[in-house]
Amino acid sequence: MDPLAPDLGVGLVGHSFMGAAHSQAWRTAPHFFDLPLQPRMRVLCGRDPSRVAQAAAKLGWESTETDWTRLISRADVDLVDVCTPGETHAEIAIAALDAGKHVLCEKPLANTVAEAEAMTAAAERAAEHGVRSMVGFTYRRVPAIGLARRLVEEGRIGQVRHVRAQYLQDWLADPSTPMTWRLQKDKAGSGALGDIGAHVVDLTQYITGDRVHSVNGLLETFVTERPVPGAGSGALLGGGSTNGSQETAQVTVDDMTAFLARFGGGAVGVFEATRFATGRKNSIRIEINGSLGSLAFDFEDMNVLEFFDATEPDATAGFRRIVVTEADHPYVGHWWPPGHGLGYEHGFTHQVVDLVTAIGRGEQPLPSFADGLQVQRVLAAVERSSELGTWQPTSTDAELLERTTR
Amino acid sequence: MDPLAPDLGVGLVGHSFMGAAHSQAWRTAPHFFDLPLQPRMRVLCGRDPSRVAQAAAKLGWESTETDWTRLISRADVDLVDVCTPGETHAEIAIAALDAGKHVLCEKPLANTVAEAEAMTAAAERAAEHGVRSMVGFTYRRVPAIGLARRLVEEGRIGQVRHVRAQYLQDWLADPSTPMTWRLQKDKAGSGALGDIGAHVVDLTQYITGDRVHSVNGLLETFVTERPVPGAGSGALLGGGSTNGSQETAQVTVDDMTAFLARFGGGAVGVFEATRFATGRKNSIRIEINGSLGSLAFDFEDMNVLEFFDATEPDATAGFRRIVVTEADHPYVGHWWPPGHGLGYEHGFTHQVVDLVTAIGRGEQPLPSFADGLQVQRVLAAVERSSELGTWQPTSTDAELLERTTR
Amino acid sequence: MDPLAPDLGVGLVGHSFMGAAHSQAWRTAPHFFDLPLQPRMRVLCGRDPSRVAQAAAKLGWESTETDWTRLISRADVDLVDVCTPGETHAEIAIAALDAGKHVLCEKPLANTVAEAEAMTAAAERAAEHGVRSMVGFTYRRVPAIGLARRLVEEGRIGQVRHVRAQYLQDWLADPSTPMTWRLQKDKAGSGALGDIGAHVVDLTQYITGDRVHSVNGLLETFVTERPVPGAGSGALLGGGSTNGSQETAQVTVDDMTAFLARFGGGAVGVFEATRFATGRKNSIRIEINGSLGSLAFDFEDMNVLEFFDATEPDATAGFRRIVVTEADHPYVGHWWPPGHGLGYEHGFTHQVVDLVTAIGRGEQPLPSFADGLQVQRVLAAVERSSELGTWQPTSTDAELLERTTR
Amino acid sequence: MDPLAPDLGVGLVGHSFMGAAHSQAWRTAPHFFDLPLQPRMRVLCGRDPSRVAQAAAKLGWESTETDWTRLISRADVDLVDVCTPGETHAEIAIAALDAGKHVLCEKPLANTVAEAEAMTAAAERAAEHGVRSMVGFTYRRVPAIGLARRLVEEGRIGQVRHVRAQYLQDWLADPSTPMTWRLQKDKAGSGALGDIGAHVVDLTQYITGDRVHSVNGLLETFVTERPVPGAGSGALLGGGSTNGSQETAQVTVDDMTAFLARFGGGAVGVFEATRFATGRKNSIRIEINGSLGSLAFDFEDMNVLEFFDATEPDATAGFRRIVVTEADHPYVGHWWPPGHGLGYEHGFTHQVVDLVTAIGRGEQPLPSFADGLQVQRVLAAVERSSELGTWQPTSTDAELLERTTR
Repeated sequence: MDPLAPDLGVGLVGHSFMGAAHSQAWRTAPHFFDLPLQPRMRVLCGRDPSRVAQAAAKLGWESTETDWTRLISRADVDLVDVCTPGETHAEIAIAALDAGKHVLCEKPLANTVAEAEAMTAAAERAAEHGVRSMVGFTYRRVPAIGLARRLVEEGRIGQVRHVRAQYLQDWLADPSTPMTWRLQKDKAGSGALGDIGAHVVDLTQYITGDRVHSVNGLLETFVTERPVPGAGSGALLGGGSTNGSQETAQVTVDDMTAFLARFGGGAVGVFEATRFATGRKNSIRIEINGSLGSLAFDFEDMNVLEFFDATEPDATAGFRRIVVTEADHPYVGHWWPPGHGLGYEHGFTHQVVDLVTAIGRGEQPLPSFADGLQVQRVLAAVERSSELGTWQPTSTDAELLERTTR
Repeated sequence: MDPLAPDLGVGLVGHSFMGAAHSQAWRTAPHFFDLPLQPRMRVLCGRDPSRVAQAAAKLGWESTETDWTRLISRADVDLVDVCTPGETHAEIAIAALDAGKHVLCEKPLANTVAEAEAMTAAAERAAEHGVRSMVGFTYRRVPAIGLARRLVEEGRIGQVRHVRAQYLQDWLADPSTPMTWRLQKDKAGSGALGDIGAHVVDLTQYITGDRVHSVNGLLETFVTERPVPGAGSGALLGGGSTNGSQETAQVTVDDMTAFLARFGGGAVGVFEATRFATGRKNSIRIEINGSLGSLAFDFEDMNVLEFFDATEPDATAGFRRIVVTEADHPYVGHWWPPGHGLGYEHGFTHQVVDLVTAIGRGEQPLPSFADGLQVQRVLAAVERSSELGTWQPTSTDAELLERTTR
Repeated sequence: MDPLAPDLGVGLVGHSFMGAAHSQAWRTAPHFFDLPLQPRMRVLCGRDPSRVAQAAAKLGWESTETDWTRLISRADVDLVDVCTPGETHAEIAIAALDAGKHVLCEKPLANTVAEAEAMTAAAERAAEHGVRSMVGFTYRRVPAIGLARRLVEEGRIGQVRHVRAQYLQDWLADPSTPMTWRLQKDKAGSGALGDIGAHVVDLTQYITGDRVHSVNGLLETFVTERPVPGAGSGALLGGGSTNGSQETAQVTVDDMTAFLARFGGGAVGVFEATRFATGRKNSIRIEINGSLGSLAFDFEDMNVLEFFDATEPDATAGFRRIVVTEADHPYVGHWWPPGHGLGYEHGFTHQVVDLVTAIGRGEQPLPSFADGLQVQRVLAAVERSSELGTWQPTSTDAELLERTTR
Repeated sequence: MDPLAPDLGVGLVGHSFMGAAHSQAWRTAPHFFDLPLQPRMRVLCGRDPSRVAQAAAKLGWESTETDWTRLISRADVDLVDVCTPGETHAEIAIAALDAGKHVLCEKPLANTVAEAEAMTAAAERAAEHGVRSMVGFTYRRVPAIGLARRLVEEGRIGQVRHVRAQYLQDWLADPSTPMTWRLQKDKAGSGALGDIGAHVVDLTQYITGDRVHSVNGLLETFVTERPVPGAGSGALLGGGSTNGSQETAQVTVDDMTAFLARFGGGAVGVFEATRFATGRKNSIRIEINGSLGSLAFDFEDMNVLEFFDATEPDATAGFRRIVVTEADHPYVGHWWPPGHGLGYEHGFTHQVVDLVTAIGRGEQPLPSFADGLQVQRVLAAVERSSELGTWQPTSTDAELLERTTR
């Protein structure tokens, strides 16, 4: 930590899973990386006063608020970190940007394209006054993913032809798993599509440097009713029924999605995201085949990137298991010696590093809200194609279409 | 070999890759398995007299023919094994069946649904007289695949929800790889779709015991012109052009296909078959997720089946790497002790075993021509969906549709 | 963090690799675990005033000292964390214990058995007054290792017969890698043996709950002279020579060790530790075969434990790849959801948790200095056996020998 | 098969596991490789007339003998293939060589060094008259092993420093597994040491091109008594006892061995061979670390060789998983296209190819009986070191010792 670096007051909205991950990142980043600004964990915001106080003590925040508008108005807050459910992203992020606060917003950027567009407009207005914004696709910051992007940029796999991406979880495979807000469309926007499908859309676009141009896919809900947790009061979450004594509520989002995609540069993509892949806990698998080589990644073995170099002679060519823990791998030199791997939360620390560095330099951090909006448009196109059973463009912008079509 | 077993005279048409694999199978099967009939490698048929003579000497056939109609008419031939390109399957197989010869026909059954229907009709006619027929989806006979089917049948993975299948090769990834008949639609019918996509359709249907009900997919040709081997005579293979001194011909089949599928029982499938997956030589990957467990297979590690049993406690649940070389695994007890794996060609030997056993017992061997026809219909539906950009049923048979729709 | 928990003032001696890892652990532990005492990062000690000040700012310590005796005498320090080279462990740890400070000492406990014995005596004296001590074998705190121990304790692998352990690094494989204090016997005590061999001795004893009873091994130095970094002044590090303009110094420790071992309970061990395993960066591989099952671990895939259950039927038995990220796996429930893996430094956080918890409860934390001493005796026996070329007992204590011999 | 190639009459002694593997090899080799001589499967020899007749029919031999001396005297037998237990190797092989027959002898060459010396002398005498002999270390003929040797020869891994080899089976892990002749010293010579340890000694010497110079090891028998199969007659196999109604016999060989080794060129080896590695069916693992790279092999994935090239930049270096199925990999071009793997028995076919080719060319096939003798001396040195607890040279030949010592 540079004692001379100016403070960057941070306010965090939300304190469950993502809130905990972001807190660890804000706390850790300055101890391993040189930052131009010194993050200060000023205030944590949550609706319930006692729960937020408890969380602030646990997660290490100096103070609390129960109303996010108050957090935004605080003079000691320079940056608002939005870790709430998707339905509230637009309102909070736009208000923060308009108040001149930098914003880090968890993904997916919003629950609808319209919201994401409004957020992007707000971000662009704010940028004119030096106010920065970023959407939290943290998996980009896994060193193996950064290495993948670098190898593509260097031309090591040539022209990209195949993109194969799966995000596999299994926490809904059991039909008796109870109902949650994540399975309600009005809260979550979508199911596997937006929650985890968004990640593989972003990751593959990031690695290839290309964009999904059109999609053809399906959404499926395997288990349409689930038990209401702690039910018995007679109040249904909506649309449900009562089977004997057990109340159930209707699942209104997708359990899984699969879609074919065409990239602007000619590659063909095959995507799948599901919460029903029994035995796969958080398996993000990406394989990219190019004219000169291939890359393969699985988050279950997150410190490894596999690379096939087709310019090698046949006799010695093979997928190399690169253990991505060398000093000249992305981010790694700031941590431990070779072979001492990183974990899930390190991506959040790297996100803080990149964000604070960009703010310090007066540059636009990436991925921007515009990037988040573009991912949102891909998701919306998947939903449309699922309804219509046909290919859908990911943009209505004729010029963009022009640009991304071969 | 049982010296008292009656002879089964075999005639093989075709002597390249598949011909060699089938020859090894006919020669090997009786030495490891007890067969009710004793295969005799009577005659090999090929168009060029000297090449077929040379092949017969190498592959171990007693005599040769250069006209397949003569092979069919020979009294010492009881079974015709068809290893020619797809365009000739229908004519040869139907003639053989009509002549009262059992038929083993390589996959895909035919180049068109119409041909496959005619073949199936011939097979059904012949079956009334005890004449048997089988289509050569040999990968079913890999012991790990047989074990997968058994586990599904036993209910070990519960209700099937996800089918994920890829057949990845890379022999066309280099644009300078020359033109072959396999890239001409009139000879090969289709490209990756029929050649390798057919296998994963059959395998996943076999393992799940379910059928693909509708598909939505795409075909793509990445490299549309290829150099003509040994060109210079001025004769183009058709549709090509001459770039300077190098003649090229047009590729008229798909380099890759990807499609989404819905199975009759409610599972969602994601399929891909390509010859452009740089670094993947013959990777057949199948993963099936059910409500109680999952299965995963990769032909690059063909003696292994991975199995996740979700009924295990969380603390000790994990994908088991089952080395499928135990005595009570399918076919394995006839070979070597545990841990001594089998190779690619063993599937062909198992195919001969199953075929000869069925003939000996007077039973219908599987997969039947009707099974081959059904796969053909799936492939045709993929082609239609690729043209139309929409979902296509795999059958026009209303009753079948009824049966396979939830 | 529990605001009512009493403070535990921590003083850390040493601020290179281990110092950074311990700092991150002291800072992180209270935010994820409930600790009975609240660690306060009071003081960092290093010899160079400006370097220690810089390190304290970076690593997050409140103040600095340049003399460890002053650190020990500070009233606001309750616990001394020793992260210096092995030659200084005994002096610092004994002085701290005698001064009534709890001690966490990095491994190996000391450079000689005599030092380790003195430290253990001091620890036992201190324990009578409630002063606690622990040696830092952090790899025990990798969740997969904890699960391995649990499965052995539960009898899931039956009687242990084989222990196979390798600690493979490659940072010395290149002969031009320069000389460091780690290659000098007077500073480091030994080479691969004490630095990394100590870890696999501790780990296998921990997992099996058994102790190495006798050993027969070898030490080898492949590259006996290495260039002196920044040399040119004419001053040699000792024993070296000058080849032309390049000065070299003599390596006085082992580059690698391998030894056979017999455990008290009858198991046979095969151990290897090396810095010359080209391509293996920090590969800790442990495989344990018992009468009812087996376990396998590789730190390159640290969130995974493989488990073979021989009570399964042959047809479905296989090594299970348990992704050790479930809530009921050791330590894991305090971190992230299933499938979100931990990294190298989490073991240090768990070490702090276990240490502070034991202190809070007035219990002896494990591994104790006596445990560290026993490992030291195993290492010494390996050295003796290497000199004499014969089996050596790991203890001169007749009663212990009696106890551990079958 | 070349119809003009002269015949090579083969007589096989023994028809259990190895006899079946050799039969398949003799039958298959001419159909995939061009051989200078045409093997004819003339005669199979076994002691029991009806069992040998049945085996000959099954395995495809033209005739039978029940006395191996008669087999040797037959004019139509040019080569004697010895697949009997080790105690009979010397007598049969020497008689055959003296009678002017080429000999292929299964490993280990003999049960004692003395027998192996006599066999080697006979082989050298015979060689003067153009009579050839070879010992059957078939695993050398796995393509991945051949590729490993090639890469070492080409200098791709530099100077060899570490050899790590394990041959792991588990068929004795269960104490109720009954007694067999393989567990009796007078029949089998030794246990895991000679049966499977011999393979890894040969393989590592073959790959490195170096020889084991001295060893220090142990032998262990975990289960010293086993039930007699079908017992009840009161006749014990010797040394056993009767526990209630269950008779047992004493195991007089090792269940496992582990030994350290020094190679002539300076490498350090760590070897282990066991039948008690629960869950490992036939796992032959070899890892070799050199100054410029490393190689790793596991027979459970036999079509793969892993290769680390340390001359690659750190950022892209990694163990390459070479799928050893390319046309320019050893033996592979004669089989199937890339990605279509071979199985266990293919090594035996390659052995026939190499043997017949050498005979045809009038050259000494490898490994020679002298090579087999040298392996036997390594095994004997392990036994001596296990008794004495000290290092033992693998040769008493002063000159050889001189040559192989650094």
